[in-house]
Amino acid sequence: MRALTTLRNCDEIFAEYYTSKLTDASHRDVEAFIGKKVTVLKRGDVEEKDVIIKAARDRRVAFITAGDPMSATTHLDLRLRAVEEGISTDLINGVSIFTACSAALGLQPYKFGRTVTIPLPEPGFLPSSPYENILENRSRGLHTLILLDIKAEENRYMTAPMAMQWLLDAEERIGSGLVKGDSLFCAAARVGSPKQALFAGYPDEILTVDLGPPLHCMVMPGRLHFMEARGLVAFANAPREILEEGVSGSEAKQ
Amino acid sequence: MRALTTLRNCDEIFAEYYTSKLTDASHRDVEAFIGKKVTVLKRGDVEEKDVIIKAARDRRVAFITAGDPMSATTHLDLRLRAVEEGISTDLINGVSIFTACSAALGLQPYKFGRTVTIPLPEPGFLPSSPYENILENRSRGLHTLILLDIKAEENRYMTAPMAMQWLLDAEERIGSGLVKGDSLFCAAARVGSPKQALFAGYPDEILTVDLGPPLHCMVMPGRLHFMEARGLVAFANAPREILEEGVSGSEAKQ
Repeated sequence: MRALTTLRNCDEIFAEYYTSKLTDASHRDVEAFIGKKVTVLKRGDVEEKDVIIKAARDRRVAFITAGDPMSATTHLDLRLRAVEEGISTDLINGVSIFTACSAALGLQPYKFGRTVTIPLPEPGFLPSSPYENILENRSRGLHTLILLDIKAEENRYMTAPMAMQWLLDAEERIGSGLVKGDSLFCAAARVGSPKQALFAGYPDEILTVDLGPPLHCMVMPGRLHFMEARGLVAFANAPREILEEGVSGSEAKQ
Repeated sequence: MRALTTLRNCDEIFAEYYTSKLTDASHRDVEAFIGKKVTVLKRGDVEEKDVIIKAARDRRVAFITAGDPMSATTHLDLRLRAVEEGISTDLINGVSIFTACSAALGLQPYKFGRTVTIPLPEPGFLPSSPYENILENRSRGLHTLILLDIKAEENRYMTAPMAMQWLLDAEERIGSGLVKGDSLFCAAARVGSPKQALFAGYPDEILTVDLGPPLHCMVMPGRLHFMEARGLVAFANAPREILEEGVSGSEAKQ
């Protein structure tokens, strides 16, 4: 509600859909809801042309994004440049994939280790760090949120099956035993929207699961508390056999 | 907006303020805003007397919390019990301290390791795990969100200075070198509300900082990207010398 009131009091409103994407509404819906024109910016407008900072020098300007407004480095950079120019800024938080995804699946947010992003395939770019970071989280019993790359300009959005294939390839390349036939993964689509889809299963199932249009993300769970295992079965149709592992596996400390 | 519409369509609305606390509005404000009576439940009503499940057997019932509605185990448990009774449930996400705090400070959310909670002092209960978990995150260059204990029934809320003292005591007891005179900590109060207060500084400063009423939380940063260091200086008044460390320190992988 504070966001809506603030937006209605602004002279100019910008939006971007390149770091995330609306899954619950169209751009027209947003404009109709606010009752004002909203100018959609591309990455270059924000990062190079400085459209927002220029406008904010003499007007009240809002910049809206899908999801939490400060989860992308580019937005932190923008806010810092504004502050350094003496332009006062205010932040109104949104629902973030970082917690909405754990909430949807019934996983406890405090048991997540660092987040990784799996990149869309690019010639000559094949990082090992997503695999290594998930492995490190797993070794501590922690869950990993796996974000999937977005190239909105090219209308390319990584899907859960693509990411699963990436992880299987990484396993073959690196071979530390992170991804096995019976490793549990969660896949989620359009989290937080009424059209949300959730699934938890083994790699061969994730490879072929149809979750519908983007955005997708994944979670590789660490040690599951029994209640979390029950959550995955109830909300994401996980195989019931994980309930037994949940009982025998000891809960992560804390 | 979806929350508001849903609440107005419910037959009965419950709320709890024992896992978190409204910082931006009173209970009366909430009732006035929804235009309906909201019954406040105590922990025992939710966990033992099953007030919500009983009501939901034949009515549309809402249960509202401050912050994200699934960050506390007790809420996951409630939802699971509902599902297991055949009661259909829906989740509407809120802004969570897990991301609002990093956003406010300008820290990148994907660089947080597992979250810890520092408990209010209780006779015979002195866990080492919060200290050990922060240390483990630090060794990987990761930030740690430090949540502070709440005992709403006794009107006891841990503050940042109390938590800082707890960490100094843990350092003396455990002695792994996590907390030194020049270790940087961030303290935050009422995050996300218009009355938010932020501060970043050294232990002796945190011990005496006055951030006003609860809720408080803290962050112990790991390796800072230069942009994150600039954020802490701009938003939390961190000492400018961290900008030099930010330059020389290498960024965490990924």
